[in-house]
Amino acid sequence: MQRTKIVDALKRTDYGADVNIKGWVRTRRGNKNVSFIALNDGSTINNIQIVVDLAIFDEEKLKTVTTGACISATGKLVESQGKGQTVEIQASDIVIYGGADPETYPLQKKGHTLEFLREIAHLRPRTNTFGAVFRIRHHMAIAIHQFFHERGFFYFHTPIITASDCEGAGQMFQVTTMNLYDLKKDETGSIDYTNDFFGKQASLTVSGQLEGELAAMALGSIYTFGPTFRAENSNTPRHLSEFWMIEPEVAFNEIEENMQLAQDFIQYCVKWAMDNCQDDLKFLCEMYDKELIERLKFVIENDFVRLTYTEGVKILEEAVSKGQKFEFPIGWGTDLQSEHERYLVEQHFKKPVILTDYPKEIKSFYMKQNDDGKTVRAMDVLFPKIGEIIGGSQREEDFQKLKTRAAEMGVPEKDIWWYMDTRRFGTAPHSGFGLGFERLLLFVTGMTNIRDVIPFPRTPKNAEF
Amino acid sequence: MQRTKIVDALKRTDYGADVNIKGWVRTRRGNKNVSFIALNDGSTINNIQIVVDLAIFDEEKLKTVTTGACISATGKLVESQGKGQTVEIQASDIVIYGGADPETYPLQKKGHTLEFLREIAHLRPRTNTFGAVFRIRHHMAIAIHQFFHERGFFYFHTPIITASDCEGAGQMFQVTTMNLYDLKKDETGSIDYTNDFFGKQASLTVSGQLEGELAAMALGSIYTFGPTFRAENSNTPRHLSEFWMIEPEVAFNEIEENMQLAQDFIQYCVKWAMDNCQDDLKFLCEMYDKELIERLKFVIENDFVRLTYTEGVKILEEAVSKGQKFEFPIGWGTDLQSEHERYLVEQHFKKPVILTDYPKEIKSFYMKQNDDGKTVRAMDVLFPKIGEIIGGSQREEDFQKLKTRAAEMGVPEKDIWWYMDTRRFGTAPHSGFGLGFERLLLFVTGMTNIRDVIPFPRTPKNAEF
Repeated sequence: MQRTKIVDALKRTDYGADVNIKGWVRTRRGNKNVSFIALNDGSTINNIQIVVDLAIFDEEKLKTVTTGACISATGKLVESQGKGQTVEIQASDIVIYGGADPETYPLQKKGHTLEFLREIAHLRPRTNTFGAVFRIRHHMAIAIHQFFHERGFFYFHTPIITASDCEGAGQMFQVTTMNLYDLKKDETGSIDYTNDFFGKQASLTVSGQLEGELAAMALGSIYTFGPTFRAENSNTPRHLSEFWMIEPEVAFNEIEENMQLAQDFIQYCVKWAMDNCQDDLKFLCEMYDKELIERLKFVIENDFVRLTYTEGVKILEEAVSKGQKFEFPIGWGTDLQSEHERYLVEQHFKKPVILTDYPKEIKSFYMKQNDDGKTVRAMDVLFPKIGEIIGGSQREEDFQKLKTRAAEMGVPEKDIWWYMDTRRFGTAPHSGFGLGFERLLLFVTGMTNIRDVIPFPRTPKNAEF
Repeated sequence: MQRTKIVDALKRTDYGADVNIKGWVRTRRGNKNVSFIALNDGSTINNIQIVVDLAIFDEEKLKTVTTGACISATGKLVESQGKGQTVEIQASDIVIYGGADPETYPLQKKGHTLEFLREIAHLRPRTNTFGAVFRIRHHMAIAIHQFFHERGFFYFHTPIITASDCEGAGQMFQVTTMNLYDLKKDETGSIDYTNDFFGKQASLTVSGQLEGELAAMALGSIYTFGPTFRAENSNTPRHLSEFWMIEPEVAFNEIEENMQLAQDFIQYCVKWAMDNCQDDLKFLCEMYDKELIERLKFVIENDFVRLTYTEGVKILEEAVSKGQKFEFPIGWGTDLQSEHERYLVEQHFKKPVILTDYPKEIKSFYMKQNDDGKTVRAMDVLFPKIGEIIGGSQREEDFQKLKTRAAEMGVPEKDIWWYMDTRRFGTAPHSGFGLGFERLLLFVTGMTNIRDVIPFPRTPKNAEF
């Protein structure tokens, strides 16, 4: 008999039909006459109840049907008597695929801490929490592709291994096939990378933006969605050494259109979660974050406030003058800290905020310079609870201005000749931004540690599984 | 005025409307009265024609409107007089964003070789060929997500950096943050990896399968779609050091369902291309491979032939006995070469072929062992022109059998304790396969060098851009 997924079985109303369900035992309870098995197959957070009449089943055989065991159950679909359940299965046949020794199976008892579950990341997708998180992760990835595909963007794969670090976004991981026990050096004592796989020093990408710009200047509207790496030794709940990033880049978009795209994009994703992940969101809301669903609604229903960095700093300075305390000093020219961003979003505007036109000194060389000579057309999208969720800008399309700024900021032209070519040949206004996928997931799931929204987190001293 | 993308403008029939088009000049020709600009914005392979009446435009200004220049053209949409075009624009205003000096712009002339274009990979997306290839690449990625999403699979991100090489699929790239000029060693002379970023030796993944299996044993049906790395020094038209792979894994699927999934999957993708990439396919068919579209139809319309390796070898041996010549010898127990695979597909069956039940010696430790003691439930999908496009298997779910086979094949149990846990706790039959994304693209685009279907190919001695 064809297997029915539990997510589908729970929606059926053709009571009396024979069905086959396969999955893992969450609990088994009962008495000497009847046994109730709560079965889950990962297709939904909801279990289906298998009712086993002990008059027709060998109780000895059922002994291995304990939490974590995998079974196939065939029987009649019936309307459930229990509350909170719609249907259940009256078993006529049970096949046991694999037991799970109660003495050694780590997910035996309920109420494990998230810290403990991180250590068994190979098993944690079997829990309600991580089942919910990873189903939502799937849905957010689909929403992202759907959003861009509907708008005529092309998904573009920028390279993972790169011989350039132009963005200067952070420390990089080196990639090599050299024998570290026998490193060849040249006459000056420098390592001779002509022996390495790529014939030069190579690293893992910190951003696909520069290559994404090349594509936008050919295909018009593109986005990347791939892994990105930072070798920073930061052990915080907001940093990963390996994370996934989405970077759209659009020819002919100026900063205003870039802001609108960012708002449309993130509202689309959050609405997708609300429409498609109700059961999982409800669970996470009840278990971890009572205000989660309210916060998601709030983002969908409110336009994002747009103001300049200069205006933002003024608001923060006024708040300080009225007694608001911040750990870090605030003043024009300094980068905003998370506490400042959250004050603007959560206390002052009570809405998501897009800050624009930052001092050029605290932003990258490729951002479009404003006529004031002091600021660039950067934009950061600030969100409740997590602060910056998106960073982007209009790009400097003027060859000479870009060349001068790159030189001022110490970016060697020999490393970006190919990037400069986009301004040398057929340059055009263009804009884009980057969204850290796991930052979005923190917001949508309500989880507070970024290690809990990616299947196998990589952090300093941790590359297990 | 809101910009109209060329793909949309070409479909419009509201002649007389004012429209704005932005894009890059492909060609400009004309006489002393009128100038015709063929403009492309990457949204489609088709250009739109901008008609410039030189009585109302300064010819001096138009001098920089040469191949590669970027312009914004506003004017009336009119029915085209030229053949092969539907609409054109009678320009009333032209803004020049950026010129492209004919003396230095590399894409000036037509007819560049693919080899030359590989050297300017940062500009080649602006050509018809690579515009077509990368739009098709986008569509194939969307088709893949759509296929699995519709069937209730979850997209699962397996790690890129890993401290284990269990699959043994190939040579690996090492990932490190150690200072190579000052490598610390322990008393035995071994490099002390406790100083490295992850506290142990780490590499780039060669496959997400083992981690994918962990997920399938929790979420039921999953797929991966991410970059994969092989540090093999092979400079062939079929190998990349960095490529993208799709690996579905399904709990409770046996080999027959795995074969059906593979066929459904690949037919879905090819049909998507036929339905959504007509103009680009037509161009590639005309330019590079006259039989391309016929071959795509052929794959959609024919069930894949299923037979065992043993039967396949018999057919090949019979062919040899009747005079068929192969470079490599054929015999039970040896791995099939591309020439053998293509003989079965192109000469014998004239259909795609799925070969199953290979000798266990030539396949991986995790494949389910058949009762004959000699073969395992492997499956390879063989395609015309490119040979193996998919490799997969039912997995060995029996803890003891897997443990024994891993030991026989030299896979240390200490490296796969977490993988073994899936068989220790709630094991179940399951199956999956891997598809190299670029192999699929070779098939769908008709390109013959794998470097031409990925934006920035990484191969030995090459990590430019």
